[in-house]
Amino acid sequence: MKVIKFPSRSDWAKILARPTPTFETIEPLVDEVFDKVKSQGDSAVRDYTAQFDGLNLNSFQVTQAEIDAASSFVDSELKKAIQVAYDNISQFHQAQKTAPVSVETRPGVQCWQEKRPIQKVGLYIPGGTAPLFSTVLMLAIPAKIAGCKEIVLCSPPNNKGEIASEILWTAQLCGVNRIFKVGGIQAIAAMTFGTQTIPNVYKILGPGNQFVTVAKQKATQFSVAIDMPAGPSELLVVADDSAVASYVASDLLSQAEHGADSQVILVTTSQTLLLEVQSEIQKQLSLLSRSEIASKAMLNSKLILVENENEALELIDEYGPEHYIICMNNEKKFVDSIQNAGSVFIGNYTPESAGDYASGTNHTLPTNGYAKQYSGVNLDSFTKAITFQKISKNGILQLGKTIELMAAAEGLDAHKNAVSIRLNDLNK
Amino acid sequence: MKVIKFPSRSDWAKILARPTPTFETIEPLVDEVFDKVKSQGDSAVRDYTAQFDGLNLNSFQVTQAEIDAASSFVDSELKKAIQVAYDNISQFHQAQKTAPVSVETRPGVQCWQEKRPIQKVGLYIPGGTAPLFSTVLMLAIPAKIAGCKEIVLCSPPNNKGEIASEILWTAQLCGVNRIFKVGGIQAIAAMTFGTQTIPNVYKILGPGNQFVTVAKQKATQFSVAIDMPAGPSELLVVADDSAVASYVASDLLSQAEHGADSQVILVTTSQTLLLEVQSEIQKQLSLLSRSEIASKAMLNSKLILVENENEALELIDEYGPEHYIICMNNEKKFVDSIQNAGSVFIGNYTPESAGDYASGTNHTLPTNGYAKQYSGVNLDSFTKAITFQKISKNGILQLGKTIELMAAAEGLDAHKNAVSIRLNDLNK
Repeated sequence: MKVIKFPSRSDWAKILARPTPTFETIEPLVDEVFDKVKSQGDSAVRDYTAQFDGLNLNSFQVTQAEIDAASSFVDSELKKAIQVAYDNISQFHQAQKTAPVSVETRPGVQCWQEKRPIQKVGLYIPGGTAPLFSTVLMLAIPAKIAGCKEIVLCSPPNNKGEIASEILWTAQLCGVNRIFKVGGIQAIAAMTFGTQTIPNVYKILGPGNQFVTVAKQKATQFSVAIDMPAGPSELLVVADDSAVASYVASDLLSQAEHGADSQVILVTTSQTLLLEVQSEIQKQLSLLSRSEIASKAMLNSKLILVENENEALELIDEYGPEHYIICMNNEKKFVDSIQNAGSVFIGNYTPESAGDYASGTNHTLPTNGYAKQYSGVNLDSFTKAITFQKISKNGILQLGKTIELMAAAEGLDAHKNAVSIRLNDLNK
Repeated sequence: MKVIKFPSRSDWAKILARPTPTFETIEPLVDEVFDKVKSQGDSAVRDYTAQFDGLNLNSFQVTQAEIDAASSFVDSELKKAIQVAYDNISQFHQAQKTAPVSVETRPGVQCWQEKRPIQKVGLYIPGGTAPLFSTVLMLAIPAKIAGCKEIVLCSPPNNKGEIASEILWTAQLCGVNRIFKVGGIQAIAAMTFGTQTIPNVYKILGPGNQFVTVAKQKATQFSVAIDMPAGPSELLVVADDSAVASYVASDLLSQAEHGADSQVILVTTSQTLLLEVQSEIQKQLSLLSRSEIASKAMLNSKLILVENENEALELIDEYGPEHYIICMNNEKKFVDSIQNAGSVFIGNYTPESAGDYASGTNHTLPTNGYAKQYSGVNLDSFTKAITFQKISKNGILQLGKTIELMAAAEGLDAHKNAVSIRLNDLNK
């Protein structure tokens, strides 16, 4: 832990710097996999699954029998918990639906905006030591509510060639259409181009390691959209003497266990709290199952003492944290003023874990400062807004002259003529 | 014009193919300019402005005196027209404001979503033979309504080293903060990295030629967001015998005058209309000031006769047109069913020009099939959605067990502990 007291503003950029990703080294591999999957389809996916995952799979699609069987392997208490989370996440994303926006801007000039679902979406669920079924909830629930017609899920198989039962059960619960045992760059390439068995999609969403991240960026060069650029997960806590030090420490550590590159920052106006949190971290760290990972992340963590609340606010907005916990007496000021954050957690009884799993908000959030310009995944991530207009005879008679003048001033004669030809008829 | 009668479904992809952009050849130049602007700032911008625009500029920022002077050079009739468009566009984008979405998902678990403005945005307005002040309206009005704090505009200077008065006057009207006489790759690089005089921004929006397009894509590698990938402009008209052939022809030609690479498509169920439109195009084409450009685009245009309305609908959704005009008896069916389009124009008295300039909808729209997954520019293009949550003691007592179970099942011990430590205190 680095304790930084009253840093001068000129040092903020250095203190708040994220690790720079090194994508150049990965790009040639991504190019190779994309080329091969594009031209050879399934056989290329099969080859790369053998090469990267050490597995020879005959077919990638998870069968209905496998999905049905999964249910019996998921603990019934866990099923109930997932169902509670499912209900909360559904409620919160359902509430994000928007009615069409309709305005008659001039008499006879009716304009409106409607959202329509992206018809084909691909969800990527990373593999790893534990099954990330919570991410299935976060991606598939809004996709289903939005009305996406085809919801495809790719996830790397484990060493038995299987996807965890918890993921299959949750995907079925959420209404995912097809599940494929494919991971990494080849999964992203398959959903970009389509293969004999894996359909191409219009948008790919979901987290992943740096291979997946670079592959998603590459996908955008082939008419596919992605949710957002990804980086290591982050948490910034702002706290004063109203905060409980042991809770703050537990929140910082929950972020640290994600990976050695996790970003963990405490900003405080209280020297007392800073010291208490520091000692609580030491106490709790050794008891964690992933203490080795968390310890590495904590080496780079920062505990920053600032002069006052306004300085804290400015520093936080300059950082733009993915997760942002506020434990301040003056919490309203911090809630109202924040401009750049992914998701905000308020008060001593709102741990980040709540939003990671079950409160209802989405956990797919902008990292690496992207909270300055990107939203986290939400219902709109699965729709696009289309505008419509219908103009009556009276409407074009009223607005026509305006359009003609502007088109002429931009030197676009045919644009003007499209109006003039109608006005001439109507004025006959 | 290519007349295609009853194409078989297997030929659709070929018929609807867009020209493939060739970005590879431009990328090395973009890399060079980005590197130099990043390291040398203004002096690099100055060098490239000399090299590409043939101009030696001492300072890039347009002065208040220049802006004030511009007003006297803009025709007063045109000013009134711009003001009408300004009012309509303001009304339609103002109406897109959304109230916070708030849900108590469980007793004591309050979740909400609010939109906050992107604080710094950069608007790019292309140069060319005529001043594209309409694009200033389309970008700056929603930026201002969203509440963006810093709105920067870059546009290439003409051969006198000036930006057109119409652009300056409109930018002032819309509340743009600073205007710079910088265009092309160097403008995008300057807004990406910031220079001594040009600020960096969080998001860059606006159309441009292929150099600007590749530069915008490059900018996304440096923590800047962009509105959307850009391609040549497109119009698809679906029409039957209820359409007026001369109006349809005028709309197709208004698209064609944009550039030789414009995409112009008529889909019809009526052979009679097809023939009439074909002859109307010939008649109108020769009268246009930009007939040379329009003629080239019309060479690649397609007039497609289809079997029936359902086939038309499927073909249109597969294409995903930027602009989509519906002149059909059965217009409701075509409006309700469309899934993939940027902006839709309905009926004989709704030319595309209306939305291009003055009805109120935005004209910055997804091309090249991106209507399948991208919205056109709208109010949300200038905001990001932030989620918030506040959980009471009772709330965490109710939800805690669910979070603990899910965190444990994902092997994330510290996530579980952040809840347990609170539950232990509360259950004491």
